[in-house]
Amino acid sequence: MSHPVDSAVSAVRTYVEQHRAAFLDDLAEWLRIPSVSAQPDHAPDVRRSADWLAAKLLQTGFPTAEVWQTPGAPAVYAQWPSGDPQAPTVLVYGHHDVQPAAREDGWDTDPFEPVVRGNRLHARGAADDKGQVFFHTLGVRAHLAATGRTAPAVNLKLLIEGEEESGSPNFRALVEERAGRLAADAVIVSDTGMWSEDTPTVCTGMRGLAECEIRFLGPDQDIHSGSFGGAVPNPATAIARLVAGLHDEHARVAVPGFYDGVVELTDRERELFAELPFDEDQWLSTARSHAAHGEAGHTTLERIWARPTAEVNGIGGGYQGPGSKTIIPSSAFVKLSFRLVAGQDPDHVEKAVRAWVAEQAPAGVRYEIAFSPATRPCLTPLDHPALRSVVRAMGRAFDKPVRFTREGGSGPAADLQEVLDAPVLFLGISVPSDGWHAPNEKVELDLLLKGVETAAHLWSDLAAHWRHAP
Amino acid sequence: MSHPVDSAVSAVRTYVEQHRAAFLDDLAEWLRIPSVSAQPDHAPDVRRSADWLAAKLLQTGFPTAEVWQTPGAPAVYAQWPSGDPQAPTVLVYGHHDVQPAAREDGWDTDPFEPVVRGNRLHARGAADDKGQVFFHTLGVRAHLAATGRTAPAVNLKLLIEGEEESGSPNFRALVEERAGRLAADAVIVSDTGMWSEDTPTVCTGMRGLAECEIRFLGPDQDIHSGSFGGAVPNPATAIARLVAGLHDEHARVAVPGFYDGVVELTDRERELFAELPFDEDQWLSTARSHAAHGEAGHTTLERIWARPTAEVNGIGGGYQGPGSKTIIPSSAFVKLSFRLVAGQDPDHVEKAVRAWVAEQAPAGVRYEIAFSPATRPCLTPLDHPALRSVVRAMGRAFDKPVRFTREGGSGPAADLQEVLDAPVLFLGISVPSDGWHAPNEKVELDLLLKGVETAAHLWSDLAAHWRHAP
Repeated sequence: MSHPVDSAVSAVRTYVEQHRAAFLDDLAEWLRIPSVSAQPDHAPDVRRSADWLAAKLLQTGFPTAEVWQTPGAPAVYAQWPSGDPQAPTVLVYGHHDVQPAAREDGWDTDPFEPVVRGNRLHARGAADDKGQVFFHTLGVRAHLAATGRTAPAVNLKLLIEGEEESGSPNFRALVEERAGRLAADAVIVSDTGMWSEDTPTVCTGMRGLAECEIRFLGPDQDIHSGSFGGAVPNPATAIARLVAGLHDEHARVAVPGFYDGVVELTDRERELFAELPFDEDQWLSTARSHAAHGEAGHTTLERIWARPTAEVNGIGGGYQGPGSKTIIPSSAFVKLSFRLVAGQDPDHVEKAVRAWVAEQAPAGVRYEIAFSPATRPCLTPLDHPALRSVVRAMGRAFDKPVRFTREGGSGPAADLQEVLDAPVLFLGISVPSDGWHAPNEKVELDLLLKGVETAAHLWSDLAAHWRHAP
Repeated sequence: MSHPVDSAVSAVRTYVEQHRAAFLDDLAEWLRIPSVSAQPDHAPDVRRSADWLAAKLLQTGFPTAEVWQTPGAPAVYAQWPSGDPQAPTVLVYGHHDVQPAAREDGWDTDPFEPVVRGNRLHARGAADDKGQVFFHTLGVRAHLAATGRTAPAVNLKLLIEGEEESGSPNFRALVEERAGRLAADAVIVSDTGMWSEDTPTVCTGMRGLAECEIRFLGPDQDIHSGSFGGAVPNPATAIARLVAGLHDEHARVAVPGFYDGVVELTDRERELFAELPFDEDQWLSTARSHAAHGEAGHTTLERIWARPTAEVNGIGGGYQGPGSKTIIPSSAFVKLSFRLVAGQDPDHVEKAVRAWVAEQAPAGVRYEIAFSPATRPCLTPLDHPALRSVVRAMGRAFDKPVRFTREGGSGPAADLQEVLDAPVLFLGISVPSDGWHAPNEKVELDLLLKGVETAAHLWSDLAAHWRHAP
């Protein structure tokens, strides 16, 4: 005598197995489109990626799928009404643009020619985020097959943006403009990861992000370091001094006012973090790094999940080629990113950084500073009923207890939370070794299919436990 | 009744005027060869430049002109015996390679397509150093025409190397190997400048040069700044901290041991510097810079001529493209150059820098450091008889009193001094606005022709005042 839950689990699993090959072929086709939003040359590819996804969602069964133009790259929107007036409405968020990638960055194969090696599918975007968007296509089909329905148990909406890797400059405006159509009881963000292949977890918050490029301008052109060296300010030296002052001796960010408003971790949250099977050596191996280093008084997990940071993403100036060129460069730049946590206001951080830079440029060195649009931090209540549905759905797919994490990366989830006045939940199956933003990015195929199963169960669970009053 | 000196002056000047057009056409042809020694792609061009020069020297009348291969780029050697057993032997030094240059660095025209605008000839190498090598071709012809000789009054040798802009890595070995043929009573270096168009000067010393590239290696590949930021060392931050510690609060180089052995300026030398018509605003305009900045307790002239320095020539790491990429870079580098003054030993400086870097790399960050072959500093006695010949020859060409300077740049003159046991004299007609190593490098045509005249007079003056005992 089989338990009803078990039959749902096996029905979903059987359907997923039967459709696995076609699902992976389709995903590979999408991954071949180099939808790099940061590089203007790839703008046509980002558009092509949106068109491809919209067509695929119609084919999946969504009665409506549209490409939404923005002043930047287009987003894709799709909806599939439940037909049940008491069903909750959920909005799935993800993105179809990817980070820049080039073979010479250290990829073993072309980043835009997907290859399967063992259980892994390698390609730029495999995990961040095309793979995790795409599991919702087979997910909803498996949900229908297992439940015998012709429409999902929830009113299902998808919003897949095209500028997440460029800081989502037009996302907030898009969401505000289309708030009526996007209205939802909960937002499901599929752009995060879980603890490990063996430890399924639900993420409860993401850091925000503020980014800027600072350029110091010295001589009006490169000048001879023999003729003039030692007697005029060198902007490369000045930018190095600026960066050297970015952190204090405790590895805390030294920009005055940066920590204003930071919500500190509670003892309970620190305990939950400490309960995870964290192996620092293994984590360092995943980070491809050779030492832990960060803010004094905090563990590594606290540093990456719940503490704000400042990092140099790029620095440059003067001669970059082989050999030497004895010049004082005319300018030098640094690209900085600041991760923000709940309680930090990106506008306040920008003001603080601008004031700090203004203090640092030496006499004879002008500066320019430009901020990209920021991403707000967000945090979900641990006891929210929809979060509990996610935990149950994931538990069914993985057949294991589900624990809690946070995400150190950033996404525009907080904009959705704020504009739509809906709680944000995170459903991600990526693992730390997937190499987001790095060469040889991959997704574990087993986990990708668990993501499909989780989505299939989630719509049933939400509809069963979180119905609107009749 | 004309003074004999005046008739020599006018004979030289007349000859130079008559042959000016062909001389400039030939120089332009040479400048079209992009003999960039630092860029391996240009190795064939450096060889072509050497071949071109050797052929031109034979055409000028030198009975011997040879291309001397080295493990790197070739040098050109030529000799023209006087026939007078009591005549002194002089060796002219210069170089036929040039700094890298590309239109997009800020050139108004193609750097390797010479253009004359007014009194200026613009091209990479116009002043540094092809123009100043080339004035010796017409110089020796004018010398013969004005004196009625068929061979120069001195035994004239030329050594024009092909790797000066790359730190002359093979020059010392070449000079040692060929010391017999290069033997000379004095070395004339034509790779320097003078104070200004109105103030002819003779340079009495050059700074030396030690160069290195330091690379800090953090994660084994670029990693996501959201997933790992704040918890591992960032090599770009570390390289910035290294550079920030390169100078102390008095703008002195903070590398322990760097100043060991430095010969301090005498009061007389400081007076000579202070007597020059130095206008700091004008100098800053030439330097295209907006403030003076350097070692406390020294004037600008002292800083650029007689004090050792450390400068960043290039810094880089992480994302360099448009937009942003939220990574922690796997590595970052800095290219440093150190200008050295008399008394400093480049080997000692290298040891000191290596020891300093070893102290600076933080835990988890490995480093690599590579030094290019160094150039020694050199200094010529103010009262040397050959120096007085240079001063007289220059006075005749310019018809003005000649003053004394030093050169902040570097050349392998000290190797010639050391290996050949001969005093080194400097004969250069470049002015600070010529833009060495910078976009739109040029030479003033009037001064170039004064260089021709100076060379013509110098061989007569040296032979008359500095004969070997019979």
